Amino acid sequence: MSNTYTVAILGATGLVGTYLRELLEVREFPLKELRLLASERSAGERLAFKGEWLTVEAVSEASFKGVDIVLASAGGAISEQWVPIAVKHGAVVIDNTSHFRLKEDVPLVVAGVNDADLEHHKGIVANPNCSTAQLMPVLKALNDAIGLKRVIVSTYQSVSGAGKEAMQELLESSRYYVQQGEVDTDGLMYKEQLPENAKLCFERPMAFNVVPKIDTFSDEDYTKEELKLVYETRKMLHMPNLPISATAVRVPVLVGHSEAVTIDFVRPTSPSEVRQVLERTPNVVTAERSQNFATPRETAGTDPVYVGRIRRDLSNPEAGVCLWVVADNLRIGAALNAVRLAETLVQNSWLGVGV
Amino acid sequence: MSNTYTVAILGATGLVGTYLRELLEVREFPLKELRLLASERSAGERLAFKGEWLTVEAVSEASFKGVDIVLASAGGAISEQWVPIAVKHGAVVIDNTSHFRLKEDVPLVVAGVNDADLEHHKGIVANPNCSTAQLMPVLKALNDAIGLKRVIVSTYQSVSGAGKEAMQELLESSRYYVQQGEVDTDGLMYKEQLPENAKLCFERPMAFNVVPKIDTFSDEDYTKEELKLVYETRKMLHMPNLPISATAVRVPVLVGHSEAVTIDFVRPTSPSEVRQVLERTPNVVTAERSQNFATPRETAGTDPVYVGRIRRDLSNPEAGVCLWVVADNLRIGAALNAVRLAETLVQNSWLGVGV
Repeated sequence: MSNTYTVAILGATGLVGTYLRELLEVREFPLKELRLLASERSAGERLAFKGEWLTVEAVSEASFKGVDIVLASAGGAISEQWVPIAVKHGAVVIDNTSHFRLKEDVPLVVAGVNDADLEHHKGIVANPNCSTAQLMPVLKALNDAIGLKRVIVSTYQSVSGAGKEAMQELLESSRYYVQQGEVDTDGLMYKEQLPENAKLCFERPMAFNVVPKIDTFSDEDYTKEELKLVYETRKMLHMPNLPISATAVRVPVLVGHSEAVTIDFVRPTSPSEVRQVLERTPNVVTAERSQNFATPRETAGTDPVYVGRIRRDLSNPEAGVCLWVVADNLRIGAALNAVRLAETLVQNSWLGVGV
Repeated sequence: MSNTYTVAILGATGLVGTYLRELLEVREFPLKELRLLASERSAGERLAFKGEWLTVEAVSEASFKGVDIVLASAGGAISEQWVPIAVKHGAVVIDNTSHFRLKEDVPLVVAGVNDADLEHHKGIVANPNCSTAQLMPVLKALNDAIGLKRVIVSTYQSVSGAGKEAMQELLESSRYYVQQGEVDTDGLMYKEQLPENAKLCFERPMAFNVVPKIDTFSDEDYTKEELKLVYETRKMLHMPNLPISATAVRVPVLVGHSEAVTIDFVRPTSPSEVRQVLERTPNVVTAERSQNFATPRETAGTDPVYVGRIRRDLSNPEAGVCLWVVADNLRIGAALNAVRLAETLVQNSWLGVGV
């Protein structure tokens, strides 16, 4: 096998596709060729890469001939259709959608966390959901060192998780609100202030609001987003019965997911032991004081997972610790992990199906 | 005792003061006279009440002569100074600050929840913190009917909890951001875009951000806001050792606090039992389906506490239930509870010190 690789980005014109292109460039991925694939609608668009203009092509079976790695980020239905075709042509697909994540023979991997799962892939590797991905380095390290007994997560998720249009909707609806709206001090009744025909990504207003529903509802009255966090975490930790629950909430933030995490451990521990474990965990940055923390606006555009507010859980002082975990959901939660997975496959010569 | 009462609002020009005035009017509180008290700076301002203009007076010892009830909402230092003087003059003070809340001989009460605690007041009644107040009807009802074992709360708190200036800061900084800012799709690095000399209520930017710090830090690396929720809940439930912890997070919402609540019960229960209990709880509105919920923008300006997303806790399926609790923090969390406490005192003839 050569030392350079042909990579295709499926969904090249989307938000994560844009990030993938940027990261392949700045991380100097050993490319032979980069193919930008998208729907018929986007075909012909020209996008910059390493000082040249590449033309987006409409995805077809021919697109995958000679491709070593596909980075797929165009939605579950697109992956369902094209990923098996790419694999048939000998490519390894790193899939960013939820479509294959829980399938038994598809490794679900955060690079640097459970790389061993990657080795025996059958041509498809799944990239976990963004809110799960940023939690994994933290939970894995703490499980290995201390042992998890129960995990409760409340999320504060940015709108970029729902794509470019969602970011525009938040910006536009916020602009409309602050221009038209005023603080009605005689009652503070805020009226719906969007134009009637506005096309909306969100069912409820996102400007100056929080909404505890991401994706659609599923089993047990949980949203799919919450269940992804539960099932994907269990799969990656190889703990199918780990007690874990989540409340996933969309907040009016553009980029960066935050999580309030409460962990019960299997034995007595302390915030300082937790801190020591996390300080030696790769890709995790620990606030230097328990009273310090990151916020999404500071961390958007950066690579690490930030852990702050490390403190004793007052409801379980012997064996419980609370954390505040923030990361750029488009990086660790999507594009960065995909590129890191590609790098890991290449470095370990794990390309090719059934190696 | 007459059937009408002289009431003084201490902090009449503030956000909660404005609400208090409105609620005394619309709820037709039996007033003999209303006195509007504030600092020297605001003295002379004229504010509307029942179609008349009342003049704000600078607070002094004379302000409290002949006053039956003081509604105090001007900050802890002001209450520390003036509340004892008001009590000396025979008034009952309903204090909205944190100053007296945890004192042993001061009842801490949510009207309709633990009214019995009100009866033996010594002239001061404390109004709980906003994030605690909206949780109390829910926790009290569930404790009485099923029994609480452990409570974990993550809050999503609006900026109005920090006053009028904080609301203006969020609106202005958001306006600045959407006018100057643009989505930098080549990296989404959001720069700090406020003018350099902007006077700020918040240490970190609030526009398009979330910040896990409300009030200052205190014991065990918890913020005072978080400890208020812990200690005040324990006091009102008469459960000094209730295992309870909180993460209090400020979100870019103008009015309305939301809370993701995980409850372990002392015995097996179900979402439907929890729903049945809450459906018969006064001042609580339960979403008609477990998949439904309120958001702050819909509920701002209304009186009830809204409970939605009532579902089994996947990390404790036998005896755990998760909830999403939303309320207008300026009403149930402040002004409305103060006026309801005044109404309860009057209806039960519990005015006068040491009754």
